Amino acid sequence: MKYREIFSKEQIEQIHESTLYILEKVGIHFTYQPALDVLANGGAKIDGKTAYFPRQMVEEQIKKAPSQFTLYARNPKNNLTIDMDNIVFTPGYGAPFVTDLDRGRRKASLQDYENFAKLSHFSPYQDIVGGMLAEPNDIPHEIRHAIMMYSCIKNSDKPYMGSVMGTKGAKDSIRMAAILFDCDEKTLKEYPSLISINCSLTPLGYDDRMLGSIMEYAKARQPQLISSLAIAGSTAPATLAGTLVIQNAEILAGIVLTQLVCEGTPVIYAASSSNTEMRYGSLCIGSPENALCVTGTAQLAKYYNLPSRAGGCISDSKVPDAQSGYESMMNMLIAESSGINFVLHSAGITESFNCMSYEKFMIDNEICGIVKRIRKNIEVNEDTLALKLIETVGPGGHFLDKEHTCLHFKNEFYHPEISNRSNYNSWKIDGARHAMDVAKDKYRAILANFEPPQLSTSIDKKLQKYIEKL
Amino acid sequence: MKYREIFSKEQIEQIHESTLYILEKVGIHFTYQPALDVLANGGAKIDGKTAYFPRQMVEEQIKKAPSQFTLYARNPKNNLTIDMDNIVFTPGYGAPFVTDLDRGRRKASLQDYENFAKLSHFSPYQDIVGGMLAEPNDIPHEIRHAIMMYSCIKNSDKPYMGSVMGTKGAKDSIRMAAILFDCDEKTLKEYPSLISINCSLTPLGYDDRMLGSIMEYAKARQPQLISSLAIAGSTAPATLAGTLVIQNAEILAGIVLTQLVCEGTPVIYAASSSNTEMRYGSLCIGSPENALCVTGTAQLAKYYNLPSRAGGCISDSKVPDAQSGYESMMNMLIAESSGINFVLHSAGITESFNCMSYEKFMIDNEICGIVKRIRKNIEVNEDTLALKLIETVGPGGHFLDKEHTCLHFKNEFYHPEISNRSNYNSWKIDGARHAMDVAKDKYRAILANFEPPQLSTSIDKKLQKYIEKL
Repeated sequence: MKYREIFSKEQIEQIHESTLYILEKVGIHFTYQPALDVLANGGAKIDGKTAYFPRQMVEEQIKKAPSQFTLYARNPKNNLTIDMDNIVFTPGYGAPFVTDLDRGRRKASLQDYENFAKLSHFSPYQDIVGGMLAEPNDIPHEIRHAIMMYSCIKNSDKPYMGSVMGTKGAKDSIRMAAILFDCDEKTLKEYPSLISINCSLTPLGYDDRMLGSIMEYAKARQPQLISSLAIAGSTAPATLAGTLVIQNAEILAGIVLTQLVCEGTPVIYAASSSNTEMRYGSLCIGSPENALCVTGTAQLAKYYNLPSRAGGCISDSKVPDAQSGYESMMNMLIAESSGINFVLHSAGITESFNCMSYEKFMIDNEICGIVKRIRKNIEVNEDTLALKLIETVGPGGHFLDKEHTCLHFKNEFYHPEISNRSNYNSWKIDGARHAMDVAKDKYRAILANFEPPQLSTSIDKKLQKYIEKL
Repeated sequence: MKYREIFSKEQIEQIHESTLYILEKVGIHFTYQPALDVLANGGAKIDGKTAYFPRQMVEEQIKKAPSQFTLYARNPKNNLTIDMDNIVFTPGYGAPFVTDLDRGRRKASLQDYENFAKLSHFSPYQDIVGGMLAEPNDIPHEIRHAIMMYSCIKNSDKPYMGSVMGTKGAKDSIRMAAILFDCDEKTLKEYPSLISINCSLTPLGYDDRMLGSIMEYAKARQPQLISSLAIAGSTAPATLAGTLVIQNAEILAGIVLTQLVCEGTPVIYAASSSNTEMRYGSLCIGSPENALCVTGTAQLAKYYNLPSRAGGCISDSKVPDAQSGYESMMNMLIAESSGINFVLHSAGITESFNCMSYEKFMIDNEICGIVKRIRKNIEVNEDTLALKLIETVGPGGHFLDKEHTCLHFKNEFYHPEISNRSNYNSWKIDGARHAMDVAKDKYRAILANFEPPQLSTSIDKKLQKYIEKL
């Protein structure tokens, strides 16, 4: 299939050339001395905390990152191929609040975290169980990262995400992965089993915490999303071309660092750039400008032969209403159409990244299912063209009771869980429910009946012991 | 820009070849003798009511339809270019019911029709005021078509759609257009001022009413959407490739007829094919299969060098909820991404084509605005790349108070009418409203303050007199 493109090759090269200019002349701010040392060794000029990247250095290092890698799960059936054509879904990440129709909005707790891990494991559309599914505010800061990972491991056998709480968070993540996969850290290098998201500090910087994490994961050769959220009008120019230059400079600088630490470390060109709502001076994520940046991100990543990441089911709405629906579908479908390969956040995120919604999580799962069906495309062959069948039925006939229909409809059609397709009267008799009401019943039923996949008792004990010692 | 494509050139040719086979060997059923006569003269073999189309005849006639035309409005500012790159929005069409949050669902009346004509005229995103915006059930059948057109003419100076109530409906439409444009029907031929939607009777047929309309409009050289709604699993095979063959055969047959009646008549390759919800045996329009057919339709139309039409903001939901939002955005955005040129239905349609919703109309207008902003793309030039500005601001700075930001944000950013982007507390203080509540207030305010564009008194009188005589 051909992906949606908004830039010509010349325009992509203009953005690339502008980025190289910024990297060489304006530089990127790094607050972490070990990163500055590695960059200096690699050929960057350092002035104070700012690194200036010669053109050749950038172009050489970027080429070293692979275009494809496998992310391993403890259940091999859930291993994932991350490349430039596949599309992988990961649920919402990082919200401090949660909300549901019954209890309203509140600070997230470990219970909420566990619930989302269960919902994500249960979903056939989420490929990764999650990272910071919601901030467990009731857990002490020092062990929060380990408790979250343990919850993912206990409730799911899909791949999960590592902590980015600096060097310490990354080290704990790697050690816990080694326990889970019952191997040493050297073996883990050959079998990437953790993926993490490391973000720049826009404009044109990285902080200690992220740099520690980037370097630690690179040493262990674990895949990373090197991600930028440049906000047009506040942390970047109000013009989206300029915003993409800022984003691109940050991401390329981060990727250069990973390759200098360990050549061939798998990275994903990752972004969630959007624009400012100028009335409030705040970030908006459900805007068409966000969607345009998604396509720009996909095109830039493809230019560098790297897999790409963008946001998916994200919205500025406070409730799972029509706005929540159209903003989430816009960002998810534009990601799919543009050839984005890794979608974070695929389900639950609302209120401009501040909140995870239980009902929205279920509705977004439906969007994920719909978009995965769209990605399956239309098969064209003798059987699907069905000329003989059409000839038999002829003008004015119908296909409802034909064997060909019975054989095909289950696989050919997507079968919704949330969307109502009954007639008006049946819908009214059934309680005239909105999508959010249906979603509420669905998530409650899943949580009430959830059974976690098996985990070896000895590995479980080792993990618990590791956490106790933190 | 590059459109989304799901078929290779070979696959499109497979569908084309299969279509030619169906047209030649299975044939199309026409219940209207004048159409059969024209087709026979053009080289089709006729057997009873079935016409069989030789390959060469189809390929020759299809080529005669133009790839571009202008649709004239009584206000020249609202003239529209219909071609293979532009995208034009027309609101919902044909629903027998209307609904709003206050009064609930009911049979549509002339008052509803007029309200939707006003909302459509007011909208900066609807390019055509409408056709059958909602069925005015309180108006006698014989004059209903004329009353609807008169309402469009009175309430808007945008282009509007003609009646397809057979020969009579088309003739009245053409005469009223001649009155409105104060010209004879010969002049009208050079200035297409009406567009109509003529639909096949799937599978593989056309009825009297549509054939009368197609031929009358073709004689007057007025543009037409030749449209098919093939339903996978009931009126077409459950496999979408086969569904597209049925759709394609019907549309090509209709287009051949238009060109035989009058060479060069402007046509749009139009479809709204979708699939059956097998649980109920009913049509669903918010499905991913619908979205896939939209891309297929765009690719087929481009193969024939014709502008294309697909549905837009359409949903199976009964209410303006999250489902309504995600289904409408899916179909509208996939139309835009695939290079569809004429969107019918752009606003208001819900409940699988059965109902027009006032609140959904306003929400869909927001979707139209968002998608039009996406279509504007990202401009790349020295000013928008903003290298000097980025250099001045440097790492760690901000762009909020910069002159470049003030100069650009109004044009660069879409400014929503429905979407809420405030923070949670402000939203709560403002009444914790869902999108549908905001939409309700918006449509009421527009209707309360509506002022129609001026219409010459003499033309108005002539139109009224014409209708009185019907």
